Amino acid sequence: MSGTAAQRAFAVGGGPRPTAVVALCGGVGGAKLADGLARVVPAGELSIIVNTADDFRHLGLWISPDIDSVLYALAGLADPVRGWGRRDETWSFMAALRQLQAPDWFQLGDADLALHVERTRRLAQGETLSEVTAHLGRALGIAARVLPMSDDRVSTRLLTDEGWLDFQEYFVHRQCCPRVQRIEFVGAAQAHPSAAVLAALRRDDLRAVVICPSNPLVSIEPILALPGVRVALRDRVAPALAVTPIIAGRAIKGPAAKMLGELGLEVSGVSVAQRYAGLIDAFVIDAADPPAAATPQMVLTRAQTLMQTPADRERLAHAVLAQADAMRVGLGRGGM
Amino acid sequence: MSGTAAQRAFAVGGGPRPTAVVALCGGVGGAKLADGLARVVPAGELSIIVNTADDFRHLGLWISPDIDSVLYALAGLADPVRGWGRRDETWSFMAALRQLQAPDWFQLGDADLALHVERTRRLAQGETLSEVTAHLGRALGIAARVLPMSDDRVSTRLLTDEGWLDFQEYFVHRQCCPRVQRIEFVGAAQAHPSAAVLAALRRDDLRAVVICPSNPLVSIEPILALPGVRVALRDRVAPALAVTPIIAGRAIKGPAAKMLGELGLEVSGVSVAQRYAGLIDAFVIDAADPPAAATPQMVLTRAQTLMQTPADRERLAHAVLAQADAMRVGLGRGGM
Repeated sequence: MSGTAAQRAFAVGGGPRPTAVVALCGGVGGAKLADGLARVVPAGELSIIVNTADDFRHLGLWISPDIDSVLYALAGLADPVRGWGRRDETWSFMAALRQLQAPDWFQLGDADLALHVERTRRLAQGETLSEVTAHLGRALGIAARVLPMSDDRVSTRLLTDEGWLDFQEYFVHRQCCPRVQRIEFVGAAQAHPSAAVLAALRRDDLRAVVICPSNPLVSIEPILALPGVRVALRDRVAPALAVTPIIAGRAIKGPAAKMLGELGLEVSGVSVAQRYAGLIDAFVIDAADPPAAATPQMVLTRAQTLMQTPADRERLAHAVLAQADAMRVGLGRGGM
Repeated sequence: MSGTAAQRAFAVGGGPRPTAVVALCGGVGGAKLADGLARVVPAGELSIIVNTADDFRHLGLWISPDIDSVLYALAGLADPVRGWGRRDETWSFMAALRQLQAPDWFQLGDADLALHVERTRRLAQGETLSEVTAHLGRALGIAARVLPMSDDRVSTRLLTDEGWLDFQEYFVHRQCCPRVQRIEFVGAAQAHPSAAVLAALRRDDLRAVVICPSNPLVSIEPILALPGVRVALRDRVAPALAVTPIIAGRAIKGPAAKMLGELGLEVSGVSVAQRYAGLIDAFVIDAADPPAAATPQMVLTRAQTLMQTPADRERLAHAVLAQADAMRVGLGRGGM
């Protein structure tokens, strides 16, 4: 692609209106918008590409925290109070685990365990993570396609003032306390995005690509680090938009703001937008944010990005898709 | 050993009174007497050799049903109503597993799961089943030594009118409905009893060996099938006794009576006693049983063998040990 994304034109052919939407997302925050999109995009037309660089083996179980957050959000099973895991959860397993003096730093609810046990069982039988996730999505009645970014192993690790830490060690065990100096996605360069991920990005009936309000540094960038994903994004036939995970200089959830600051980056939506330069056509900052300097590479728009209720999710999804439709039609009409 | 067991003499030296007790047992029924023995034998002097031929891998987890029954019984965690698993159990995992359309024929309580997950984790790290079990026993505050019969894999399978079935397939999935024609302990001939098992049987301060009221066909005989166990039993320096798992022609729990009948054996305590001929000095039938024909190979004694309360367990343990002490002293005094 030459020129800036905001100057691109998207074909408006005489065929049917494009219906396919692709979302990229990480955990809980991104999963909320993914759920919003699932509520407004026709069944089967939404593909959600999910970060798997947080995945890890714990107690012999294969745990995919971001995939689980998306599955639970879309199945209506996410716990609205804790913000992670399943609603109506019980905790007998953890109590018994402590009694057995087993590692207990990672909280696993009793019902949540079923997902990890069944995933691990199916992986051990030779299924790919994509196949397992497709099964779990079907079993939970989810119409959207939840796509692990890759069936290959990619692992986020962070260089901190306490040395290198694996992601869950940093995120859960050390509760994001160490100062981050560098982030690496081990295995990303050798990994392949799944065939379904590339196919979703290359659909010629694509309506929009949406980067959800996830941590850019550890949720979205592992996806972008996979060979072929940036190229597929640049070659897309529909507008791409990202939604800020930062409101008024603070992350809604998680360590995004702390990490940006520690890495010497501005803690703002625009700072996040700049990390996606060349890949998106528009960036959605929060309606309550102060005026931001325009960026030459993309359109800055505003929306109510805080999602406290299911209605908030749906409203934001509508706003994002409306912006994408406007850009496609507007740019298409104007031509280049 | 020549002659019959009842004619053997056990040395009564001038040394300290022997204190070590070895129990052989399977699941729930045997575990009750094992618990009774643990209540009356000094801490650390009781070794419980437990059948592991029911062990199996399920959902990727290593499950040792008989070891777990013994651990739960001795830790005071066994469910008194259901008769298996942990008391105060919750069942969120199973409900979620069903939702994911995963195999749900084997019931796993939420707290119970911790035992299977931690065992599987430690085995995967290279610990032996004996080491794992010793850790679990310590963590649960159990003073007795709970000894898996072997660290090698032995698997009970049954030839039935529906063909060969693995033990749990027969026992849980098919609920013991198929008619049993033959029983095999796959791997037993190549397996080794653990060093601790042989050492326990060979202790020279042995007070008694007790075969608990477990199913002889699938709980005790897998232990006896291990090379070296029958020899160690025959060479023991203390009386050996077995307690009937059959009262008035019926098993207190489980398929022992049904299996004995299907294999053409008499369904009675004496019938069980005969399977242990040459290995035991006395057999305890229930106080309520009709008079039984004397067997030349062992002493038949009577006790209240139904254990409904912890006091029942303790009373039976006292009775069994008193019988052993009487045989040791009596025979020792009388000579051969």
